[in-house]
Amino acid sequence: MELTLGQIARLVNGIVQGDENLVINDVAEIQHAQAGQITFLANPKYSKYVATTAATAIIVADDASVAYPNLVRVKNPNYAFALLIAQFRPELPRPAPAIHPTAVIADDVILGRNVYIGPHVVIEHGAMIGDEVVLYGNDYIGTAANIGPGTIIFPHVTIYHRCIVGARCRLHAGVVIGSEGFGFVRIETGIEKIPQAGRVIIGDEVEIGANTTVDRGTLGDTVIGRGTKLDNLIQIGHNVKIGEYCFMAAQSGVAGSAVIEDSVTIGGQVGIAGHLCVGRGAMIAAQSGITKDVAPGAIMLGSPAQERTKFVADVAALHAIPDLKERLKKLEELLKSIKPEG
Amino acid sequence: MELTLGQIARLVNGIVQGDENLVINDVAEIQHAQAGQITFLANPKYSKYVATTAATAIIVADDASVAYPNLVRVKNPNYAFALLIAQFRPELPRPAPAIHPTAVIADDVILGRNVYIGPHVVIEHGAMIGDEVVLYGNDYIGTAANIGPGTIIFPHVTIYHRCIVGARCRLHAGVVIGSEGFGFVRIETGIEKIPQAGRVIIGDEVEIGANTTVDRGTLGDTVIGRGTKLDNLIQIGHNVKIGEYCFMAAQSGVAGSAVIEDSVTIGGQVGIAGHLCVGRGAMIAAQSGITKDVAPGAIMLGSPAQERTKFVADVAALHAIPDLKERLKKLEELLKSIKPEG
Amino acid sequence: MELTLGQIARLVNGIVQGDENLVINDVAEIQHAQAGQITFLANPKYSKYVATTAATAIIVADDASVAYPNLVRVKNPNYAFALLIAQFRPELPRPAPAIHPTAVIADDVILGRNVYIGPHVVIEHGAMIGDEVVLYGNDYIGTAANIGPGTIIFPHVTIYHRCIVGARCRLHAGVVIGSEGFGFVRIETGIEKIPQAGRVIIGDEVEIGANTTVDRGTLGDTVIGRGTKLDNLIQIGHNVKIGEYCFMAAQSGVAGSAVIEDSVTIGGQVGIAGHLCVGRGAMIAAQSGITKDVAPGAIMLGSPAQERTKFVADVAALHAIPDLKERLKKLEELLKSIKPEG
Repeated sequence: MELTLGQIARLVNGIVQGDENLVINDVAEIQHAQAGQITFLANPKYSKYVATTAATAIIVADDASVAYPNLVRVKNPNYAFALLIAQFRPELPRPAPAIHPTAVIADDVILGRNVYIGPHVVIEHGAMIGDEVVLYGNDYIGTAANIGPGTIIFPHVTIYHRCIVGARCRLHAGVVIGSEGFGFVRIETGIEKIPQAGRVIIGDEVEIGANTTVDRGTLGDTVIGRGTKLDNLIQIGHNVKIGEYCFMAAQSGVAGSAVIEDSVTIGGQVGIAGHLCVGRGAMIAAQSGITKDVAPGAIMLGSPAQERTKFVADVAALHAIPDLKERLKKLEELLKSIKPEG
Repeated sequence: MELTLGQIARLVNGIVQGDENLVINDVAEIQHAQAGQITFLANPKYSKYVATTAATAIIVADDASVAYPNLVRVKNPNYAFALLIAQFRPELPRPAPAIHPTAVIADDVILGRNVYIGPHVVIEHGAMIGDEVVLYGNDYIGTAANIGPGTIIFPHVTIYHRCIVGARCRLHAGVVIGSEGFGFVRIETGIEKIPQAGRVIIGDEVEIGANTTVDRGTLGDTVIGRGTKLDNLIQIGHNVKIGEYCFMAAQSGVAGSAVIEDSVTIGGQVGIAGHLCVGRGAMIAAQSGITKDVAPGAIMLGSPAQERTKFVADVAALHAIPDLKERLKKLEELLKSIKPEG
Repeated sequence: MELTLGQIARLVNGIVQGDENLVINDVAEIQHAQAGQITFLANPKYSKYVATTAATAIIVADDASVAYPNLVRVKNPNYAFALLIAQFRPELPRPAPAIHPTAVIADDVILGRNVYIGPHVVIEHGAMIGDEVVLYGNDYIGTAANIGPGTIIFPHVTIYHRCIVGARCRLHAGVVIGSEGFGFVRIETGIEKIPQAGRVIIGDEVEIGANTTVDRGTLGDTVIGRGTKLDNLIQIGHNVKIGEYCFMAAQSGVAGSAVIEDSVTIGGQVGIAGHLCVGRGAMIAAQSGITKDVAPGAIMLGSPAQERTKFVADVAALHAIPDLKERLKKLEELLKSIKPEG
């Protein structure tokens, strides 16, 4: 595939600074890009490669100060580059509609149009599979579960009974939706199980990373809102409500009955305790431990987590100790010399 | 289903405070409960909903101070409510005994009575499957493995060769039992593998959460005691011994050869180093890192973890620094004024 | 199987201190070893068992000071014992070459000699499976993926399209190779996906633990170098490059585009932020959070991590506060008594 720099600029809603007629045939990372390729610069860590890259052009932000013969200036270089990857490196085509003969599909399952049901898939009684759904293979869809149209399910995914997955979602390999939450109670003779009778409800355009687990609700439902993206190996406890358009990075966990409002960004390996609320638009740094409600828009760090200013103050306080010690020692010596005279 | 408040009280061994003849037709969470439903109050965080709930009755602790027209007082509201969920929201019925034709079962496997072996299950040579076992589908039971009676195995579970699972266990989707532990040794020319020749032995009534992994022993066995409950995405290293009736929350990990005694409670994302012992009844807060033996009954926090009093003292010390700094500065100024006269 | 102590010494390149003709019939851990068994001592935590073990002989380091009737002295006791486990406790034999009739293999797949393809395995178009490969069962090998000779793949493993696995690797149950990395960009109307068009390339003799996930590159490849060993439940982000002969313990995670050089050792539950470099031979303690480049050979602890000396200084500083407080109080009192006279 070939596009001129001018064509690319129109595609990404940008402005060429340089030669519009240059021909681009691929995308590449700035440190590896060759002649004929276009790259991008968004993270300042990579600015050093501007001097050495062989890229024909670089996509940069409108206001970026970058000296290079050919630039395409855009509002959001990450997004523009995403559009170009889609152009130059098209995805593996969606499998053509088919139902593999080894799939085991209960007789009352409702299958939409143009579905692809791969080898060794199991679909239990009463399940509904929307139009254009892809089940790659070795997946298990439980009794009365419901998969929305256009959703792609990679191999080895388990959807427990009665759970609902929205439209145009992507569920990566090994995802588990609807396992029983960790509901137990200690009694004198041991531990008793609290039945987990609710469901999981996943909105449209949600993406869930490999081997991530989402427990079903105890009575009500565990909910993941529209457009939210979960990375790999995440744990979502029972009754959790996650809002729309949240990001959650790998290996984070949310304990039971917590509420995460819309547009929250959560780093990797974060833990969020149960029965609390993280307000809209909050940002939580990697490895933080959230033990209290978080105000909307707050930036939290540490374990237990604090607002950024408090966290920074604590770190500064810790690093001030050697100086305090030194000054205290001086005072003590000074006083020793004063005291006899006192 | 309908039960009077009096019938419910008898079921949960409680005492009605209000009208015994009121009819209850469902259970609900306190913030969502409607007329005709019964709810419960155990966590004080939810006390605020007593004023707004429409529940016909609330289950509370014997000594709870709750003003509401109809209460059922019990010793343990969580447990009582668990019993009511089981009444009003019965589980998906256990699949009727059957062996799906797509299951691949070696000819010398011993199958108990009334088993359900779902689609695409693989059972290798010499395995034993107890009475009433359920294998939902797409499971893999390795050579000479042994599954105790009444155990429920959800989809995509792997049991490696020679591992033993007790009676009435629940293994959730994606669980791996008996993978090879992380046993390697650096030598001059690279890294050599230490063979992992032991087994995993899981006691009766153990529940293991989705995508949790339990490594086999190196020579002896990795052991999980009767009644212990592991949440999702937990890692249990080789040769670990976990006692009876322990709780372990999601994403925690126990490194090789550690011993966890009976009735230990472990929060989420906890790490326990290898070759140490956590004493009976200890409680470990979420995200703690255990690097030394823990005394029986101890309460541990932090990374590296400390007993609660020491942890609290450290936090207090850190927060005392600004005050120390301020006081030190005053002294310095004071001394400056004294010194010339000294 | 029986070997004399002399035969064992020759096998492990060691020297007998005691009776060469004693007969050994098994290996055991020092705390459980009986007469006729050989054990080893490498971790000083287990020295206390020298007094109580019934082992016929103990393998110890060349220079170890251990008083016991029969010793075999070697350079590396862990490695010597690994060799003996392999002798006395042979692995489950590799399945004999066969292709199970329930495996679904696309017609253009290239299969090597002597492969074992277990039940319900799926191999998509254009994949290549090397000689002597074992796929235990219920595995999914995506379009145009390539599995090197001698590699063992346990059940429920997913290899996405175009990913490359080297020779003589071991991939444990539930491993996911090539899932789409967490590449998204916030735009005004929500969140857009960045296509993930690269691959995963895994070198020879790599071992990957159960339920570990490795994301494919965005444009280039995610790479894991020869001989590297990953434990269970690890997350490797897109575009990460891991060098040769690294160790990474369970539940650790590496964020996108980070570089881990050769021979790095990483403890459990470590988090490594994106776009940084961990230098050759560095050692990172469990639960650390790496937020900056790490120098070659550095030893890092804490979250955020620091070099060992700084970490130790911070801990010491924190614990010095009560003493500082006490001394400050004394000075204040002293000055109160001086001041009136001043």
